[in-house]
Amino acid sequence: MLFHVRMDVQLPPAMPADQAAELKAVEKAQSQALQAQGKWRHLWRIGGQYSNVSIFDVDSVDELHTLVSTLPLFPYMKIEVMPLCRHPSSIRDDDR
Amino acid sequence: MLFHVRMDVQLPPAMPADQAAELKAVEKAQSQALQAQGKWRHLWRIGGQYSNVSIFDVDSVDELHTLVSTLPLFPYMKIEVMPLCRHPSSIRDDDR
Amino acid sequence: MLFHVRMDVQLPPAMPADQAAELKAVEKAQSQALQAQGKWRHLWRIGGQYSNVSIFDVDSVDELHTLVSTLPLFPYMKIEVMPLCRHPSSIRDDDR
Amino acid sequence: MLFHVRMDVQLPPAMPADQAAELKAVEKAQSQALQAQGKWRHLWRIGGQYSNVSIFDVDSVDELHTLVSTLPLFPYMKIEVMPLCRHPSSIRDDDR
Amino acid sequence: MLFHVRMDVQLPPAMPADQAAELKAVEKAQSQALQAQGKWRHLWRIGGQYSNVSIFDVDSVDELHTLVSTLPLFPYMKIEVMPLCRHPSSIRDDDR
Amino acid sequence: MLFHVRMDVQLPPAMPADQAAELKAVEKAQSQALQAQGKWRHLWRIGGQYSNVSIFDVDSVDELHTLVSTLPLFPYMKIEVMPLCRHPSSIRDDDR
Amino acid sequence: MLFHVRMDVQLPPAMPADQAAELKAVEKAQSQALQAQGKWRHLWRIGGQYSNVSIFDVDSVDELHTLVSTLPLFPYMKIEVMPLCRHPSSIRDDDR
Amino acid sequence: MLFHVRMDVQLPPAMPADQAAELKAVEKAQSQALQAQGKWRHLWRIGGQYSNVSIFDVDSVDELHTLVSTLPLFPYMKIEVMPLCRHPSSIRDDDR
Amino acid sequence: MLFHVRMDVQLPPAMPADQAAELKAVEKAQSQALQAQGKWRHLWRIGGQYSNVSIFDVDSVDELHTLVSTLPLFPYMKIEVMPLCRHPSSIRDDDR
Amino acid sequence: MLFHVRMDVQLPPAMPADQAAELKAVEKAQSQALQAQGKWRHLWRIGGQYSNVSIFDVDSVDELHTLVSTLPLFPYMKIEVMPLCRHPSSIRDDDR
Repeated sequence: MLFHVRMDVQLPPAMPADQAAELKAVEKAQSQALQAQGKWRHLWRIGGQYSNVSIFDVDSVDELHTLVSTLPLFPYMKIEVMPLCRHPSSIRDDDR
Repeated sequence: MLFHVRMDVQLPPAMPADQAAELKAVEKAQSQALQAQGKWRHLWRIGGQYSNVSIFDVDSVDELHTLVSTLPLFPYMKIEVMPLCRHPSSIRDDDR
Repeated sequence: MLFHVRMDVQLPPAMPADQAAELKAVEKAQSQALQAQGKWRHLWRIGGQYSNVSIFDVDSVDELHTLVSTLPLFPYMKIEVMPLCRHPSSIRDDDR
Repeated sequence: MLFHVRMDVQLPPAMPADQAAELKAVEKAQSQALQAQGKWRHLWRIGGQYSNVSIFDVDSVDELHTLVSTLPLFPYMKIEVMPLCRHPSSIRDDDR
Repeated sequence: MLFHVRMDVQLPPAMPADQAAELKAVEKAQSQALQAQGKWRHLWRIGGQYSNVSIFDVDSVDELHTLVSTLPLFPYMKIEVMPLCRHPSSIRDDDR
Repeated sequence: MLFHVRMDVQLPPAMPADQAAELKAVEKAQSQALQAQGKWRHLWRIGGQYSNVSIFDVDSVDELHTLVSTLPLFPYMKIEVMPLCRHPSSIRDDDR
Repeated sequence: MLFHVRMDVQLPPAMPADQAAELKAVEKAQSQALQAQGKWRHLWRIGGQYSNVSIFDVDSVDELHTLVSTLPLFPYMKIEVMPLCRHPSSIRDDDR
Repeated sequence: MLFHVRMDVQLPPAMPADQAAELKAVEKAQSQALQAQGKWRHLWRIGGQYSNVSIFDVDSVDELHTLVSTLPLFPYMKIEVMPLCRHPSSIRDDDR
Repeated sequence: MLFHVRMDVQLPPAMPADQAAELKAVEKAQSQALQAQGKWRHLWRIGGQYSNVSIFDVDSVDELHTLVSTLPLFPYMKIEVMPLCRHPSSIRDDDR
Repeated sequence: MLFHVRMDVQLPPAMPADQAAELKAVEKAQSQALQAQGKWRHLWRIGGQYSNVSIFDVDSVDELHTLVSTLPLFPYMKIEVMPLCRHPSSIRDDDR
């Protein structure tokens, strides 16, 4: 089941550089593990912004919430979620 | 080059059913041709709405504009465009 | 799987009364059938508005979209969807 | 009498972890006591967000205000309230 | 129980003058009857706009909805409702 | 002359409890004095929010501004003002 | 007493040209009469828009409402009103 | 050339009182000097808010920007600018 | 003097094709004449939308208003105007 | 390929003056280097605001993102991006 998630990150400018670097490193590792498992199906940067568009493929809303809310940057992100489904005009087998 | 496009369709309720059906049939054919060419890379329905999220892969903004503005439903759609680029945490080769 | 759906209805004032009545009667019948099946779990009127808040319990986003988009009032409604999940403080067995 | 309440929580990232844990523990206890009394009828997490949708069943707006404004997270929440009433198409006895 | 209701009226400019006059006359009569019963406790015009601010004193949200949704201008109004309660600093006996 | 004023209070969570208590005590005293003089004609709490709806009866906009801007919570409030006037359907002598 | 009024005009494109011309001519005459009386103290066009910013000097909100709501373009305008008062830094005698 | 400028001031509550007083004193002096030169043509307080509406009469956008951006409160203000021009219905010689 | 103008066009779908074509042809001719005169300095299409971003170089706000409001598509456009000035970091002689 | 970028800068008032000056000096140097290379094609100040409108001419969205996100003021800016393309009515060779 697919969900479209937009994440806008806003780190406090006063956060020490090494704390920010640590947060980002863990975030990246978790993100890549989820991509490898097929749970985080797509991940793009929005040009010119500290934001991404992601497509998650999960078994339930509970799973989606667990994955997103345990990201280390979660407390610093504004998040928008939209459920996606098969479009009747799609010809791609995996757009579902 | 990737662009994220959201399209919200609003057909006038007074439009005759066969005119609407004709518009939708041509729209579907153009969409599927563009998908087959790899220009319209992803197409999802937003659950519960007459709206879609699409990813276009084009050579220029001019090409994007030509593809979108010649869709037969273009006069009836509210459209939002965001440029996408490679995310440094992405592990998928084709998310670019 | 639960989805929170808000529907705001706006019928054109010029719609003939019997056409509106027919639409509403079919809408009511479909809604009550879905409630009886447990798919449309809750349905409340928002006080003072021609709007409702609904909780759907469906197997997939595709099923949600099919149920909502085939309602006869669908072309006249503005719809907002939010996925819901279990709250860690909930004590009600069926709030999931 | 039913009220639909949406709560969006925003804790300051600088809040010490034990202070946050204490606030959340008291919040949970109060919430569960109110659920046990039937005052807080439903409680769902909104997927991907530190937010909930709740249905309160109270005797008056004064009671609603007292219950909500004495939650320990109240100073950290953005709250939206909508009065609900019986929908004429509802077939559930307790959706009122 | 008190509710704060804002009503913004938008009549179609093409509505025949006598139909508008008839709607307004019935609206006025219903409003004044509800005021006489104490249900519609206050009614003010917002300066410079075809809008009003009203305070309703009703027994339930269901009663509020019935009163508002049966006004003849209801199909032409945008309506916002806020529940009100006793303010701890109020010294007026009837501000509740 | 009547003005509709909505005040949303947002105290910094870090404000010491006794400073907040002092501010609120002075605010309450000023509010009640103005109510006693008939300048602050109505005062209601908005259910579930740290907000109020007030009706001021003043001789001029200057007087309104002086009364509101000298409240001790003024620096912590978001304020919206709407001028009110007699509604042609009102039957209450004092709704003006 | 001063009020800041913004008026955005939206005539239906289908309105016959002579009806529009007649409305505008009467609007202009009323506006100029009110300017001559000192009631409509300033009137500016907002560059690039069919909108104006006006300053009214009236004795009451009722007078403001009567003047604005009897303009022939009133049914075709979106109107915003803000009460103004003396600014403590103003050195102009008539900015009040 | 006229520009309509709205300024909303938001001083941090934690700013020391003498720093705020100094900022406001310099702001007032600059504002009054510009008014005396005819550059800042009107200045009104918006009732109930720490905001003003101003009309500037300048030779260029560059001059406007220099005047506004060198105000001592500039870092603490949200500013909106609209260009104004002669209204064809205006009868005042100086409303241009 | 430079102004940034965004124009969003919305033609009624029911407008006859030849009327639309005529409007667009005249619009194009006027636009190109103004570009040739240097008044309409830049003109870009916003990708995927029936909208443009334009830079006007005019002697006054009155001239800007005359140029924009006499475009044949003016009644069908939503227009936003922002005054521009020299940026202190610009190295281009004509960005003023 | 052209992108329209709006940047709104918000420096924390508490930032030490020399830190702000250093950030701005580096920002200016990077901006001017990019202008000299033709990557940052236009740069204007929005009158009365700490904001700019810029036109970037880049080879890809990735290049745009790299240029913008490495500006020293990036963490303090709200940024909006719109892709631009050739307008069919443009007569300027370089508006593409």
